[in-house]
Amino acid sequence: MKTERIDLLNQKGYKIIQNTKGFCFGMDAVLLAHFAQVQEHETVIDLGTGTGVIPLLLHANTKGRHFIGLEIQKEVADMARRSVCLNDLSKEITIVEGDLKNACDLFGKGCFDVVTTNPPYMKENGGLVNPDRSKAISRHELLCTLEDVMKSAAGLLKTSGRLYMVHRPRRLIEIGNLAQQYGLKIRRICMVHSFVDQPANMVLIEAIRSGNAQLIVEKPCIIYQEKGVYTERIRQYFEM
Amino acid sequence: MKTERIDLLNQKGYKIIQNTKGFCFGMDAVLLAHFAQVQEHETVIDLGTGTGVIPLLLHANTKGRHFIGLEIQKEVADMARRSVCLNDLSKEITIVEGDLKNACDLFGKGCFDVVTTNPPYMKENGGLVNPDRSKAISRHELLCTLEDVMKSAAGLLKTSGRLYMVHRPRRLIEIGNLAQQYGLKIRRICMVHSFVDQPANMVLIEAIRSGNAQLIVEKPCIIYQEKGVYTERIRQYFEM
Repeated sequence: MKTERIDLLNQKGYKIIQNTKGFCFGMDAVLLAHFAQVQEHETVIDLGTGTGVIPLLLHANTKGRHFIGLEIQKEVADMARRSVCLNDLSKEITIVEGDLKNACDLFGKGCFDVVTTNPPYMKENGGLVNPDRSKAISRHELLCTLEDVMKSAAGLLKTSGRLYMVHRPRRLIEIGNLAQQYGLKIRRICMVHSFVDQPANMVLIEAIRSGNAQLIVEKPCIIYQEKGVYTERIRQYFEM
Repeated sequence: MKTERIDLLNQKGYKIIQNTKGFCFGMDAVLLAHFAQVQEHETVIDLGTGTGVIPLLLHANTKGRHFIGLEIQKEVADMARRSVCLNDLSKEITIVEGDLKNACDLFGKGCFDVVTTNPPYMKENGGLVNPDRSKAISRHELLCTLEDVMKSAAGLLKTSGRLYMVHRPRRLIEIGNLAQQYGLKIRRICMVHSFVDQPANMVLIEAIRSGNAQLIVEKPCIIYQEKGVYTERIRQYFEM
């Protein structure tokens, strides 16, 4: 049975193909795409792009020149490629099937202005692993660890290039340690809270390669002003 | 000219002596004292206690057994000692004049359940140094670095003992690296924002010695709900 559906991304009318039985994009990707700052003419690579939601949103919201989405799962990469075609963006967005651990071999070192990534949040042995292999790969570090992601990102970035990552707050210190280890400096953090009186459940991170900027912890990003009602900030992300 | 004054701490009517020309305690100390969790019968040491505000507030708010304030500046330590006497707390709070870098020699290793500290925020060469030596010592790392504080704290704590620190968010990653280096694990962070739509200007940190707990980033601490009006949370801290 066919379980794919086409969803509206609510950005310039872009559409995305998702598998209702697979991993569908979430608020994480939307927040990351709005947190990332892509300047005119910059080139961007999204590591573990899944359905390609981040390149699609970045294309809709920025003036970046070219966007690459790297995805290890063949069927998922194929679905992302069909989404790109559906929006007639094949010239601006390229989906590549491949392993992010080999990204520097695939694309060369120091070629990108921006790396984005919404990696698996959970360690391989952390918590229940989804019996659906594709979902499990998106959520657990089965095919790549946080260190793999950091190492590849650092290798892919030009000097002064930026990494944008969304992750769980509980991994923040580890992310800081790994960033330092691979020559990246975290300079912007935004904590994401579902409600203003709840602990953070996501963290958005900007790190710069070989930079020396001072770390800023931005105003918190609050998702809901009350149950079922997005804050103004989030509503803006979903406006057409 | 005498420039000391006696201020009310607004906690159980405790009073504190401060030098109007010296470094007076601020919101930082109040927030740290409420963030720190001291259980019944626990012993606490405050590194660089200044006027002794943190031991005084912790005594007012917790059931800890004994509180030590370590202060390197003779006149400041003397003032803190007089505040302790003024509140008739000499049996519960001890002010010791000494260098936190020698704290493990002074007090022995692994003797404390809790270490608190509101250390100088600025590196020795970071920004204008106050011409008043005493204020400068409180604000700049002239007599101790962040690493000195972390090393001493780790040495003083029992296994599973906790460090509570307030600092600037821009030092967060450095704090995380140093904590790991000295065997402390950060398990609770609270970002402090003057207003909900401004970047964080302080961060409260709990780290555990040899612990393995998962990091939680708590709900943000917002100081003002509007200009000049404290939020309910902060108002509670100043209630008698």
